[in-house]
Amino acid sequence: MIPLRPNIAAMKGYVPGYQPPDIASWIKLNTNENPYPPSPEVVRAIRAELGEDGAGLRIYPSASSQQLRETAGALYGFDPSWIIMANGSDEVLNNLIRAFAAEGEEIGYVHPSYSYYGTLAEVQGARVRTFGLTTDFRLADFPARYEGKIFFLTTPNAPLGPSFPLDYIDELAGRCAGMLVLDETYAEFAASNALELVKKHENVVVTRTLSKSYSLAGMRIGLAIARPEVIAALDKIRDHYNLDRLAQAACVAALRDQAYLAECCRRIRETRDWFSAELRSLGYDVIPSQGNYVFATPPDRNGQRIYDGLYARKVLVRHFADPLLAHGLRISIGTREEMAQTLAALREIG
Amino acid sequence: MIPLRPNIAAMKGYVPGYQPPDIASWIKLNTNENPYPPSPEVVRAIRAELGEDGAGLRIYPSASSQQLRETAGALYGFDPSWIIMANGSDEVLNNLIRAFAAEGEEIGYVHPSYSYYGTLAEVQGARVRTFGLTTDFRLADFPARYEGKIFFLTTPNAPLGPSFPLDYIDELAGRCAGMLVLDETYAEFAASNALELVKKHENVVVTRTLSKSYSLAGMRIGLAIARPEVIAALDKIRDHYNLDRLAQAACVAALRDQAYLAECCRRIRETRDWFSAELRSLGYDVIPSQGNYVFATPPDRNGQRIYDGLYARKVLVRHFADPLLAHGLRISIGTREEMAQTLAALREIG
Repeated sequence: MIPLRPNIAAMKGYVPGYQPPDIASWIKLNTNENPYPPSPEVVRAIRAELGEDGAGLRIYPSASSQQLRETAGALYGFDPSWIIMANGSDEVLNNLIRAFAAEGEEIGYVHPSYSYYGTLAEVQGARVRTFGLTTDFRLADFPARYEGKIFFLTTPNAPLGPSFPLDYIDELAGRCAGMLVLDETYAEFAASNALELVKKHENVVVTRTLSKSYSLAGMRIGLAIARPEVIAALDKIRDHYNLDRLAQAACVAALRDQAYLAECCRRIRETRDWFSAELRSLGYDVIPSQGNYVFATPPDRNGQRIYDGLYARKVLVRHFADPLLAHGLRISIGTREEMAQTLAALREIG
Repeated sequence: MIPLRPNIAAMKGYVPGYQPPDIASWIKLNTNENPYPPSPEVVRAIRAELGEDGAGLRIYPSASSQQLRETAGALYGFDPSWIIMANGSDEVLNNLIRAFAAEGEEIGYVHPSYSYYGTLAEVQGARVRTFGLTTDFRLADFPARYEGKIFFLTTPNAPLGPSFPLDYIDELAGRCAGMLVLDETYAEFAASNALELVKKHENVVVTRTLSKSYSLAGMRIGLAIARPEVIAALDKIRDHYNLDRLAQAACVAALRDQAYLAECCRRIRETRDWFSAELRSLGYDVIPSQGNYVFATPPDRNGQRIYDGLYARKVLVRHFADPLLAHGLRISIGTREEMAQTLAALREIG
């Protein structure tokens, strides 16, 4: 008998979005990847780190990712002691739970948002409480004082799209007895972010990723910004060499090329807004999005039918079986051309 | 107040071996890195994955690291369902504790060996029990039935060097009520390994890394081999995208170039055995090592004095303050030339 912990034996694993093996033959709009390559500076930095013979790879990377923290700190306006790097922001979400929520203690998040928070809590043996959204995009039935150890707020919300207003997040921070983690995976596509609240509230943490806006999903680079006491705790929990040498080189180069990032995000926002308008003209209900995706509901509210029709035409989007979401689709924003082809397919499907 | 879990607030973090900023000016023999570059096939594979413009990096990597598991499975003689890949073997050590040891439950390991097992247990809130070694290199006072959830056995032992004999490990597997994790970080340098015990005992797990023998410490690639039920549990715990695209490409290429690995390890073993003999001729006590390092004790049993003398001569080795180890030094095996320079420095220090 394999003596697994009961919570591990009982849980199901998280299933990430489908990655088709014949990827080149698809218009792939299902995992919010960026349609543009990363900055040319990233490629240059990786090549430089690799060198002629890769000899640098025989040596351990910087354990503290110091250069990355300095670069991110300068960019966001924080001392490096307020920043921790992670092997994808998923790593730091995991370690936040380990830092604050013991077995049997509660964490909370919005449903619908990123269900992986729940998986991470199950691994820890923590309890999960979810809160729905009101029609005006506020948390439904959120208590005046929330006693859970962590509350995860995805803003902009995925899969729906809107950001929570800063003054509302500010109010939530005051209502959380534990930590308020603002998962800003999509912040670079949004009109605003909540970084200033990290300075205002000692219980606020912001997480970011280079997967989406920086086109580096394949490199696994994320970070968190919080008070030095929180960062020091997370630092004790993380693997001491969590980022490899090439990821570290890529990260510094990507963060330094803000002009490239801005242009990339501008194009995606422009395509998003045009695509949303076109969808509406087809009779779709489209929630105004601050991310690089839209949540769109067809006139017959049959998300599965549209998903299947797009799938048959080699357009891959995301459909969720969840009853709260099954009427619609989450569609990532690709290039203008990819979205035009998607619209043509949708017209064909009817 | 930051509401940290008490075990996290109380613990100290693990401190990895020192990485000097002016690394090129040192003979660096302190973290058991390989003195040779990785296989040229690794560099080729990384360049191919990167491509001209790095566009592949915008897409998530394989979540299951399927190609890596197939390659490792073919190499070690296991179905891929017996293999899990990790962001360095540290990741899978961490996840093994999370799979088997709840808060307050016990894990065990040998002291001296890899103290990071203890750090990982502290993060989990698990209890730690250590066992010493007898003069004939067996576990001291190990019970007929060990009831801890996991026992970690580093074999070859670091920092001391010897492997445990296969029949002894076989016996230990039968004495462990929980899992027996064989940390084979240095197995490729040794005369034998314990892979066959994974097939024989359902509670045996073997962990491996590409950091040492494959010269890829900078890329963070490790793996574990165990029954599919154990692998399935670990799979639920790990980050779903734990290995980035370049690490995945590097791993497959490295595992496939066994001729390069064999030649690299042969040279290191040859240098190790020659260096050990030379050290003995200087009056040092050198434990016969199966790893890419030796534990050596100077005639006056003053490890700190020799460490300081080497440090002053820009030779960096590892000295442990631990009273069990303070009399000696762990010296990684570099190139023949580096070891000759180290011997010259030791003669000078006297």
